[in-house]
Amino acid sequence: MSKAQLEQLRSRFAEGRSALDTPDINQMRQGFEEMLTQFPPAPGVTFEQADLGGIPGRWCIPSQVADARVLLYLHGGGYMVGSSIAYGPMASQLASRLKARVLVPDYRLAPENPYPAALEDAVRVYRWLLDNGVSPRSLTLAGDSCGGGLTLATMVAVRDAGLPLPTGAAIMSAWADLEASSDSITSKAGEDPLLNGEDLRGMAGAYLGSASPRTPGASPVYANLAGLPPLLIQVGSAEILLDDSTRLAARAGAAGVKVRLEIWPEMFHVWHTYAPVLDEGAEALDDIAAFLDALYAREKESKTVTA
Amino acid sequence: MSKAQLEQLRSRFAEGRSALDTPDINQMRQGFEEMLTQFPPAPGVTFEQADLGGIPGRWCIPSQVADARVLLYLHGGGYMVGSSIAYGPMASQLASRLKARVLVPDYRLAPENPYPAALEDAVRVYRWLLDNGVSPRSLTLAGDSCGGGLTLATMVAVRDAGLPLPTGAAIMSAWADLEASSDSITSKAGEDPLLNGEDLRGMAGAYLGSASPRTPGASPVYANLAGLPPLLIQVGSAEILLDDSTRLAARAGAAGVKVRLEIWPEMFHVWHTYAPVLDEGAEALDDIAAFLDALYAREKESKTVTA
Repeated sequence: MSKAQLEQLRSRFAEGRSALDTPDINQMRQGFEEMLTQFPPAPGVTFEQADLGGIPGRWCIPSQVADARVLLYLHGGGYMVGSSIAYGPMASQLASRLKARVLVPDYRLAPENPYPAALEDAVRVYRWLLDNGVSPRSLTLAGDSCGGGLTLATMVAVRDAGLPLPTGAAIMSAWADLEASSDSITSKAGEDPLLNGEDLRGMAGAYLGSASPRTPGASPVYANLAGLPPLLIQVGSAEILLDDSTRLAARAGAAGVKVRLEIWPEMFHVWHTYAPVLDEGAEALDDIAAFLDALYAREKESKTVTA
Repeated sequence: MSKAQLEQLRSRFAEGRSALDTPDINQMRQGFEEMLTQFPPAPGVTFEQADLGGIPGRWCIPSQVADARVLLYLHGGGYMVGSSIAYGPMASQLASRLKARVLVPDYRLAPENPYPAALEDAVRVYRWLLDNGVSPRSLTLAGDSCGGGLTLATMVAVRDAGLPLPTGAAIMSAWADLEASSDSITSKAGEDPLLNGEDLRGMAGAYLGSASPRTPGASPVYANLAGLPPLLIQVGSAEILLDDSTRLAARAGAAGVKVRLEIWPEMFHVWHTYAPVLDEGAEALDDIAAFLDALYAREKESKTVTA
């Protein structure tokens, strides 16, 4: 990263925050969508609206797809904002790097639909993929921010339902403790240019409704993560959510999950969305693609051997 | 890993432990050396005894060396056992993968030479390398167990002395908290086939002498790690030292160090030494080589640009 890249971004953050600074939830959603679609999608992809067994969503299809690969992407936005439109650019960056069709479902949002609405929808979409011929060997999951937490909660629910798990998952800047009890909520408060504890607690309240902030399905730092497939966990060092990720890594690893945790110096919440103008954004996406690519390749190899 | 591989290893562990079960420190050192040299070195390497400004050591030289690369390897053995001979096979595995000359110094051991003898020797060897024309751009560090902790303590001392830091470091199953206060010391006690808290505390006492177990130079989980180069931290999920690594990763990352933590399911203390008969051992060494290789390559590129 050049210092110039980072300085330019800091001024954008202020704009972004003011776009979200409205009591009207629909205006907030629109502001978030405009912020995240400021960069065009990666070249060569096409988008297709989809009905995923009653849940709307959008496919992002790259010009080349390897081995029927599918990535199910659970978007961020504090369980309150974010959409398959907002995450078109992010989906396109992953689709083209991974040579996978990327599906971004529009799970139901809070406050209209509190926990467990988002989780139920994510699990239903996962099941819909299996029912529609997607092999778990060809399927990986990814998500950012609340979508990172939701990715883990979804895999736990999938495991508990006795369904086959995906081949791996990558999570970026996960929000995984809705109690906001990570040390970094305070220790990184002065460094984080995007989030603060108060906002987190507000969004947590809207999503949780009457559920406890320690509910494992909402706060997967408290979940039993045993049996999950290999995980890549990426987080920036300038995030109040840093320790949501270090705690997840420690907990998943102790439960016997293969874990890779990457901590990126100076990076801020979901810096990946700035990949078109920030070297580390592109590099972090490259790492995700390489990580999932190796898992797809290994599954394909083991299938060949056992076939 | 096949289950058969792991079962075979479990019987070796028992043999290994009994070889070390002697009150005679010289017998213990000999037993450790025999255990670690049970596999031959990787093909094509040669060894050369060296005098590193008064500290003995041994070079492992692969048939091909890329860009004058040097890896300084700080061996494990609880600061009490271990040697450049014992670590010949490990050095050879890294040398041939990384196309680097690997230097294993025989730093002074406890109980004859308590803290800070090992650290002083490691820093002297580092300085000797710089004085003898090794560019920090071509220099990386690695270490296992106490050598993992020593690798971090050495870099902190190098930083504080105002010397140029190496290009990166990889540590395996680090012993980084001589107070033995990691949760995993108890939570993984039933899973760890090699180490127990009592042994750790005994070795810590021998090394620390009169120093506090929280001395950052002996227990780098308590050190200020700011400014260190990129770190790869590998640990097994079946280790009582698991949380020495997760704590190091969290602390280094929070200080702005680029960190990759890998937690390997079912793996035990420094499983890398079994690379010739254990797939995960070879794969973990491959990861270290790829990680350091990318750093060497990046340094070379930046040198080309600034030249």
